[in-house]
Amino acid sequence: MNTPIIVNESTDKKAKPSADQLGFGKYFTDHMFIMDYDSGLGWHDPRIVPYQPIVLDPAAKVFHYGQTVFEGMKAFVASDGRILLFRPEKNLRRLNFSNHRMSIPQLDEEVALEAIRQLVLLERDWIPAEPGTSLYVRPFVIATQPALGVAPSEQYRFIVILSPVGAYYAEGINPVSIYVEPEFVRAVAGGVGNAKTAGNYAAGLIAQQEASRQGYSQVLWLDGVHRTYIEEVGSMNVFFKVGDTVLTPELNGSILDGVTRDSVIRLLKHWGIAVEQRRISIAELVEAQRNGSLTEAFGTGTAAVISPIGELYWQGEKFSVNEGRTGDLSAKIYDALTGIQRGTEPDPFGWMLELSRA
Amino acid sequence: MNTPIIVNESTDKKAKPSADQLGFGKYFTDHMFIMDYDSGLGWHDPRIVPYQPIVLDPAAKVFHYGQTVFEGMKAFVASDGRILLFRPEKNLRRLNFSNHRMSIPQLDEEVALEAIRQLVLLERDWIPAEPGTSLYVRPFVIATQPALGVAPSEQYRFIVILSPVGAYYAEGINPVSIYVEPEFVRAVAGGVGNAKTAGNYAAGLIAQQEASRQGYSQVLWLDGVHRTYIEEVGSMNVFFKVGDTVLTPELNGSILDGVTRDSVIRLLKHWGIAVEQRRISIAELVEAQRNGSLTEAFGTGTAAVISPIGELYWQGEKFSVNEGRTGDLSAKIYDALTGIQRGTEPDPFGWMLELSRA
Ligand SMILES: Cc1ncc(COP(=O)(O)O)c(C=O)c1O
Ligand SMILES: Cc1ncc(COP(=O)(O)O)c(C=O)c1O
Repeated sequence: MNTPIIVNESTDKKAKPSADQLGFGKYFTDHMFIMDYDSGLGWHDPRIVPYQPIVLDPAAKVFHYGQTVFEGMKAFVASDGRILLFRPEKNLRRLNFSNHRMSIPQLDEEVALEAIRQLVLLERDWIPAEPGTSLYVRPFVIATQPALGVAPSEQYRFIVILSPVGAYYAEGINPVSIYVEPEFVRAVAGGVGNAKTAGNYAAGLIAQQEASRQGYSQVLWLDGVHRTYIEEVGSMNVFFKVGDTVLTPELNGSILDGVTRDSVIRLLKHWGIAVEQRRISIAELVEAQRNGSLTEAFGTGTAAVISPIGELYWQGEKFSVNEGRTGDLSAKIYDALTGIQRGTEPDPFGWMLELSRA
Repeated sequence: MNTPIIVNESTDKKAKPSADQLGFGKYFTDHMFIMDYDSGLGWHDPRIVPYQPIVLDPAAKVFHYGQTVFEGMKAFVASDGRILLFRPEKNLRRLNFSNHRMSIPQLDEEVALEAIRQLVLLERDWIPAEPGTSLYVRPFVIATQPALGVAPSEQYRFIVILSPVGAYYAEGINPVSIYVEPEFVRAVAGGVGNAKTAGNYAAGLIAQQEASRQGYSQVLWLDGVHRTYIEEVGSMNVFFKVGDTVLTPELNGSILDGVTRDSVIRLLKHWGIAVEQRRISIAELVEAQRNGSLTEAFGTGTAAVISPIGELYWQGEKFSVNEGRTGDLSAKIYDALTGIQRGTEPDPFGWMLELSRA
């Protein structure tokens, strides 16, 4: 790296929460990484500073025109003490893909990775070790220029914050029930559904709230053009085991290219299980459920890794999957992925990046 | 109003820019309005304070999940010194519509209007008087809770800032050339295209940049489902005069319910001109241009009021409208609306709200 990262260590360390207090994204560590962008200058002044508020002009573009992208990945501490990141290059490539779509300047992925490496190592005492816990890494970019014209910002800030997170399944991995959304649409090809940008998430909250009110924990999104084809579930990609084949929606321009999705596909192929990435209609799934060939369904994402689906609600009918229990394949994938992540299983794909002090 | 607005006057007043320096959204006045929301408490602490930075935790939801809405309206000073706002109730109703869609709590529209009234009156010396200038009012809401879970924020801030803005047409009203976007999509029914939320604007920048590179000043968006029907132009609604009828896309769930759009429709009807709000395909427009019946086209929005369209580019062909000159009807609408806004013409619809010290 050309520009060294300046480190300004905090003198006022926070008390660390216990593993059972953690939850998701509630606690943040003592430091954060910041780098600024100015048109003409490019990205400059990479630095690690005490965790502190962001101070922005009220006219900063992020508040008005939403130029922002983010990523989410996890750092783990292995039983032998190694500190491991799961496929960070893939997240950083996606960050730049999102940057491109949102008209935000490209980041040097090596600089970003070095920033994350140094920050995580500085905060290594914050990485929880209990099963299912990890240190969640949240890189994000916001447009900071104070100007109300609708045009790309001339200033940005790239920030990385870290949050120790608890076990997603406090009482073991449990299937969720899913509401197939008939009205609201998450994204459409040609839009920004394949970018990890803030607006996509705000847009989905209203459907999520309606699903909760009806007793469902997540929304399954259908495509915005035909209102027929499966897209994602909540903020996860989605898989279905039908007969001996595992189906997942293809990368059609409106869904996120999930790192967990890609990892699951590669694991399944490695095990000799057929995977099809293609259009899947809700009618096809209903038919498969009725004839008994739909035996498992699950969401995939960094937060939960695997989230089994026990029931689908669609047009007034409930369709149970595997009698509401976690399927064998879902459990096997969960164990394999989390084993690789914690370093308790071999890593045949070279997915884990071991961080060490330079 | 129940809770009085606390006013903390700035002691350090800025120098005011001259009319020719203004531009759009570059300068901000000496004060801003702020009101906070906390779940349980509701909206509280309405206050006018010196214009100052917003200080937020790096985990504030606005940066990550994009829960934000905004509005834009203008205050004018009439030649007789009255201070006038153009249809602010309609903007505030739309703000609450956007709030609903983005899972943000409703605002009391009367409180918001009173806030704007007091703020504009306090800053009355900032309202430029030159033809075409005005004081742009930007109310917005951002989600401030510092937590990374994808769920509605439990804290928000409602802010109003003011920016003196210059004449949109420095050298008189001039037609623009428009690029009909073949690839990118702004919004789709079931999404958030009819809400005024930040993410919509960031999503459109990439197409806007491509249009600029090709020498066009704005993008005309087609619908995301059929890629056939006209939606909006840039950040404006759009109208076409075909024969003796004026056409504009219907409010189909993916376009904004523009205040200027509504005002133009009402003016046209008042003048006895036929207006149709319906689906309009790009093929219909091309056909109308070819047979000579498409005689005028223009965008409508708060910033420009009326923006005549002189040329459309679609699938490798250029289609000129009215030989690239501003049409008579476009000019007449522009004069009528700006006349009502400046108080130089009668206001038959009661659109102007006169602000006065209480
Ligand atoms: C919309 C959306 N889809 C899918 C995913 C899953 O992606 P990944 O496996 O990279 O976490 C995420 C986020 O994590 C997401 O936000
Ligand atoms: C997307 C979009 N469409 C249309 C308009 C026009 O609306 P109005 O006439 O209320 O300004 C605006 C904004 O002003 C807009 O942002």
